[in-house]
Amino acid sequence: MTTIKDVALDANVAVGTVSKVINGQHVSEKNKKKVEASIKKLGYQINYYARGLKTQQTYTIAAIVPEILNPFFASWVYYIEQALYSKGYKMFLCNTQGNSEKEDYYFKIASQNKVDGIICVSYRDAESYIYEDIPIISLDRHFEKKISCICSDNYHGGEIAAQKMISTGSHHLIYIRSGSTITGETMNRGLGFRDYCKSKGVSCETLDLGDEYDVSEDSKLKHEIYDFFVANTKKGKFQYDGIYTSTDWLGLLVLDQMKKLEIKVPEETQLIGHDGLRLLNQEGYMLSTIVQPVKEMAEKSVELILKKIQGEEVDILTVLPVEFADGGTTR
Amino acid sequence: MTTIKDVALDANVAVGTVSKVINGQHVSEKNKKKVEASIKKLGYQINYYARGLKTQQTYTIAAIVPEILNPFFASWVYYIEQALYSKGYKMFLCNTQGNSEKEDYYFKIASQNKVDGIICVSYRDAESYIYEDIPIISLDRHFEKKISCICSDNYHGGEIAAQKMISTGSHHLIYIRSGSTITGETMNRGLGFRDYCKSKGVSCETLDLGDEYDVSEDSKLKHEIYDFFVANTKKGKFQYDGIYTSTDWLGLLVLDQMKKLEIKVPEETQLIGHDGLRLLNQEGYMLSTIVQPVKEMAEKSVELILKKIQGEEVDILTVLPVEFADGGTTR
Repeated sequence: MTTIKDVALDANVAVGTVSKVINGQHVSEKNKKKVEASIKKLGYQINYYARGLKTQQTYTIAAIVPEILNPFFASWVYYIEQALYSKGYKMFLCNTQGNSEKEDYYFKIASQNKVDGIICVSYRDAESYIYEDIPIISLDRHFEKKISCICSDNYHGGEIAAQKMISTGSHHLIYIRSGSTITGETMNRGLGFRDYCKSKGVSCETLDLGDEYDVSEDSKLKHEIYDFFVANTKKGKFQYDGIYTSTDWLGLLVLDQMKKLEIKVPEETQLIGHDGLRLLNQEGYMLSTIVQPVKEMAEKSVELILKKIQGEEVDILTVLPVEFADGGTTR
Repeated sequence: MTTIKDVALDANVAVGTVSKVINGQHVSEKNKKKVEASIKKLGYQINYYARGLKTQQTYTIAAIVPEILNPFFASWVYYIEQALYSKGYKMFLCNTQGNSEKEDYYFKIASQNKVDGIICVSYRDAESYIYEDIPIISLDRHFEKKISCICSDNYHGGEIAAQKMISTGSHHLIYIRSGSTITGETMNRGLGFRDYCKSKGVSCETLDLGDEYDVSEDSKLKHEIYDFFVANTKKGKFQYDGIYTSTDWLGLLVLDQMKKLEIKVPEETQLIGHDGLRLLNQEGYMLSTIVQPVKEMAEKSVELILKKIQGEEVDILTVLPVEFADGGTTR
């Protein structure tokens, strides 16, 4: 069996240098390349178990999400796990479903060094149990404490949605949102949308459906949407000709109600969601949408948390670009 | 802070009895109820960390699945994690994507007692690295070794699909399958379907599309499906009037090709999938389907693996019932 010594010999570097490369610590780019080439050439298998005993790290990260029944979070978690494994890390999965006790538990075991870090999607008032000394990467959510946050360019996403619909003839727009109202990056979706409309002198209203991210309550939400559409349809004509929803999930609920009311999409009213959900994660987009680069965001989160674990400073906010994708609900 | 002693005092039982209840070991039903009532009443919080140190268990289970990008596996993993957490267990998630090294790694750490057990969905020839002395629950898959398997009633699912389409006028049926050909419970879908057709004297053919579970290769699969439909359409009429697919995922690919060829579903040809996928896991079914009780299967798996960890014998095969759900592709 190939050992770390064989790798060091082949790469003509010290054993300590090989160890650093394996553990993701800093070595010169030249030595890193030499070691990686030798690892590949000799087929050296990293013994993660022994490594854990030696370095007192657990090589475990907890991924906290509301729930992977939501395909956006399923793909987020999927890409995080893939990226972590490639770096020799295991991943605990925690679906909180808004259960604060569960979030709390994972932050506790992190502070006890039972996990090396946390990548979290939290919509709760987590300030009381979030600690700056635990490596944490937060998706979308800002904290008062100095916690690094990753997100996509939500503000520009909103701008693109408005620009797309205005350029194809819509002039009475509405932004429909639901979900947590805790300060976070996702708030920028509506902001970018409204700002762009304003800059073009196009009317833009907002419908806030409140904090309804629990999937089991969709029927209540559906009724609210349906009632809104009925109240705003006069003489068979819906008074908004362009809708931007804060998520694709909400966009699909809206689309469903529009179908029931026989509002023609995209002829009469255009619709753009946000996230980039695809049917079974592989088919075309389910509606026109602002696509978040989920894979890149997940990989970046892993890169950032490993840096934090090594004690490196990382930016407080990392923003990745979004793009528009046609899913048949725009002209 | 409430301690285990307070609970014992309140419930009027020995501390050891409370400990057993917390660790899921056997106590009388009467004592179990008393202890649970006191835990609830006093708001006692189980200290999982201390518990792990004491009992030498990790209170960790690894869930191995092909990939949670597939919504069936996302919901399977979701319910497993929820059930494990309620019993004080954490869950490692491993998306294998057919990567044998990854499966191997988790079986290795299980044999090193770094996880207490494995709940796995494996399509690989895992006989060489699967050990009877590790608590394992397998979904669908049979092994030569004595590994407990959980599944839903695939054979009856096939029967229901045939019965449904025959009773609504289909008389030239076909079963279309893709995926692993390793011996497992899912093979019974086609078996039940064909047996029912035979018993009714209805013609039934099979199209085997091979081992195509990798989502990135769907386009190749799509072409094969499309070509099959073209080859079997004569004078504008598709020659099968009832299709049963081995999964909903495959059923949706088939539906897509049928739409392209303007085959009317369900008027000309009915279609039934298998699994019970729903759009965003909450809307109506995406096609008519044989629904697997994913939540119940996941909860049962957790119940079984915890029994195994306690050294109890569990059945080699556990089968849960399926049911038909209308998704608009049957008459």
